Amino acid sequence: MPLTTILDRIDEDLPNALTRLSELLRIPSISTDPAFADHCQTAADWLVADLQSIGIKAEKRQAPGHPMVVGHVDGDGPHVLFYGHYDVQPVDPLDLWDNDPFDPRIEDTPNGKVIRGRGTSDDKGQLMTFVEACRAWKAVSGSLPCKITFFFEGEEESGSPSLVPFMRDNAEELRSDIALICDTGLFESRVPAIVTRLRGLLGEEITITGPDKDLHSGMFGGAAINPIRVLSKIIASLHDETGRITVPGFYDGVPELPEDIRAQWEGLGFDHEKFLGDVDLTTPAGEHERSALEMIWSRPTCEVNGIQGGYTGDGFKTVLPSKASAKISFRLVGDQDPHAIRKNFRKMVQDMLPPDCSVEFTGHGAGRASHMSTAHPAFDQARQALSDEWPDPAAFVGCGGSIPIAGHFKDILGTDAMLIGFGKDDDQIHSPNEKYDVESFHKGIRSWARILDAMTR
Amino acid sequence: MPLTTILDRIDEDLPNALTRLSELLRIPSISTDPAFADHCQTAADWLVADLQSIGIKAEKRQAPGHPMVVGHVDGDGPHVLFYGHYDVQPVDPLDLWDNDPFDPRIEDTPNGKVIRGRGTSDDKGQLMTFVEACRAWKAVSGSLPCKITFFFEGEEESGSPSLVPFMRDNAEELRSDIALICDTGLFESRVPAIVTRLRGLLGEEITITGPDKDLHSGMFGGAAINPIRVLSKIIASLHDETGRITVPGFYDGVPELPEDIRAQWEGLGFDHEKFLGDVDLTTPAGEHERSALEMIWSRPTCEVNGIQGGYTGDGFKTVLPSKASAKISFRLVGDQDPHAIRKNFRKMVQDMLPPDCSVEFTGHGAGRASHMSTAHPAFDQARQALSDEWPDPAAFVGCGGSIPIAGHFKDILGTDAMLIGFGKDDDQIHSPNEKYDVESFHKGIRSWARILDAMTR
Repeated sequence: MPLTTILDRIDEDLPNALTRLSELLRIPSISTDPAFADHCQTAADWLVADLQSIGIKAEKRQAPGHPMVVGHVDGDGPHVLFYGHYDVQPVDPLDLWDNDPFDPRIEDTPNGKVIRGRGTSDDKGQLMTFVEACRAWKAVSGSLPCKITFFFEGEEESGSPSLVPFMRDNAEELRSDIALICDTGLFESRVPAIVTRLRGLLGEEITITGPDKDLHSGMFGGAAINPIRVLSKIIASLHDETGRITVPGFYDGVPELPEDIRAQWEGLGFDHEKFLGDVDLTTPAGEHERSALEMIWSRPTCEVNGIQGGYTGDGFKTVLPSKASAKISFRLVGDQDPHAIRKNFRKMVQDMLPPDCSVEFTGHGAGRASHMSTAHPAFDQARQALSDEWPDPAAFVGCGGSIPIAGHFKDILGTDAMLIGFGKDDDQIHSPNEKYDVESFHKGIRSWARILDAMTR
Repeated sequence: MPLTTILDRIDEDLPNALTRLSELLRIPSISTDPAFADHCQTAADWLVADLQSIGIKAEKRQAPGHPMVVGHVDGDGPHVLFYGHYDVQPVDPLDLWDNDPFDPRIEDTPNGKVIRGRGTSDDKGQLMTFVEACRAWKAVSGSLPCKITFFFEGEEESGSPSLVPFMRDNAEELRSDIALICDTGLFESRVPAIVTRLRGLLGEEITITGPDKDLHSGMFGGAAINPIRVLSKIIASLHDETGRITVPGFYDGVPELPEDIRAQWEGLGFDHEKFLGDVDLTTPAGEHERSALEMIWSRPTCEVNGIQGGYTGDGFKTVLPSKASAKISFRLVGDQDPHAIRKNFRKMVQDMLPPDCSVEFTGHGAGRASHMSTAHPAFDQARQALSDEWPDPAAFVGCGGSIPIAGHFKDILGTDAMLIGFGKDDDQIHSPNEKYDVESFHKGIRSWARILDAMTR
């Protein structure tokens, strides 16, 4: 069966593919908020039914958290596993969305058509690129080109607590020759890219308690300890004047960037000014004397993702609050050990507490950084296939985000993972008005058809 | 008419007085939240009707914010003005209330009966002590003992923006021989007290903006500035290692405590350990080497009353937020100038901003500290009357809170103000489960009857 027939079929079927994607997008499968647990079940059911509709033996597999979806189809040649996640980020602040985040719509923009809504780019739209490629293949040739396992989780946006146990318990079933992961983007929104480095992620929530109840700042201000002030001081102390993180031992296992990789990255011609300018910034805010690209792809960071304490409504309330809390995350590189960093971070916070204050810690995931080997022939096959589809030749790149699944495939299953995705920098994932370009979706589907073809020729 | 007859009438009528207070408490007149504006009107209407029911010519007077209530009754002897506020604090966090904050109930506690609900102590219960004293006087003697003006506002908990213009516009009408203010407490929950020092209050809300939208902390962390980190650093820098406030010029006009007043305060036998122990603290958290009482009555402070930024819901969201904001208040003493401090604070914050960050300021009130002269004979008359009603002799004390109205009476009307109130330290004003002791209410009413008697004998 010639590839061009399959690509033609993809082109013809695009309107239907967008309709199917919209159905999935309408399910508000926010994994981090327990109020949306039923919707996660619904999204898993939808995927099972959709996989079954193209002849894949698929089922929903319950896990302690949200369910997994696993599907298999037999075939000759290499055994490929495809991973994606059907859960999405919360949508607040809801008032910054121009439309209902779960009522996706196709919009014309100066840069072409987009589909807008929560999960369009991260990760439902990306996940469906592979499913649609398989659907077209099946429609044209009556079967899929090789043995394929589909593996979708619903907790990627909330630290994937069920993932590792599930992979361990089902290692035989999930083992394959190569794992494909579609949760990344085009380099500079243009160049097709295979990610070979991902940062790890450690999430910590800390809550400081001072007085045992909210107090009146007139009656107690100046006498009673204020937990917002304590928390602010802790946060302010997490970085030194040069932007380095002060947690003891934090930089253990952080390698300097090898000169050849630095040279390769410089060859990519990354537009630093545009990258920051797109979000109204001019100045890299990380460690002194490191570029934005180096910071994001090769340096560990510490960010505060949320903070809350006292009265935050309209107007003013002169409360001296009992509690203040913050969500803090660390991005990790190289051989940094998230568990050692968690321990040192907690000790550092404990040591900074003034009298009468206590702290509670809640851990939210702890994953190491991943560095992919590119030795498997699929890497070169995919790079060529992507170069055939897109105007620019494909590149091996880094990624500042954390997709711990890549490391798990290697560690638990011994399988190399190839991260290929079609998101753009302005997709506003995790933010209001998330979108996915119809071009990303369309050429993404075509890319997977080409990659499957290249790997099974 | 002998005073004892009026006191007997107060004792008999207490159940009805509690019923009337409960009616007023059921009106959720939260002034700081625009959603409750109608309820503020209702509370003002209720007070007008209640004053009219005891023969006072009262009316609701519209103001740019919530309305004023003004009532007059003629009589011989001194002209007394009584001030209180009918607005209340917000009730969040609502889940920490044991009952509906606006469904007040009488409860038996180990320390006696209390009435529990928002505004019981601050200030509806206190306000009604004077009204009930007048009601009893009228019922027994057919008229009130002197010329009285009633003046209630509905914006005390939100910075009283309409108050000064209204006092200026109606200065002739509001001028009296002495102003009585019932919004303070018993010293150590026991000793009847006339407050002669109040701290001033300056409120500032600051919002830091970094990137122009919320970002993904994986894609941008380490490259884009994080406004929560910037805000934390600003807050952490507001105090030095000795607990002093670092805003330039902040201590201009702050006097050292005169030795005679220090000696008088030491004579009060304030139980520092109990004061902090009641809120589960052990260590004064203010300037080094200053006691809690000295901090609260005679030193200026800076507190963060609220902070918010990024994702604060359940679970974790790796957002790098666009904005972070904090509500910060300064308590002022002596001759500190709130407008100069506001200017210096704003400049200090501006100077600390890193590249790519902007800040927005919203001012929330700016009132100087007040020091009352005790030369007016009413001070000694009231001190004697209070000593007659309560087991302990009355004292002249300080107060850490800010009741700018006292200064306004002096500055705008040339009238001395006498602050007398019956709240207790555990009333939990501004906090969940606010209460007012029935003893405070009952003996408070009796106290005002005695004070009116002493002033008009």
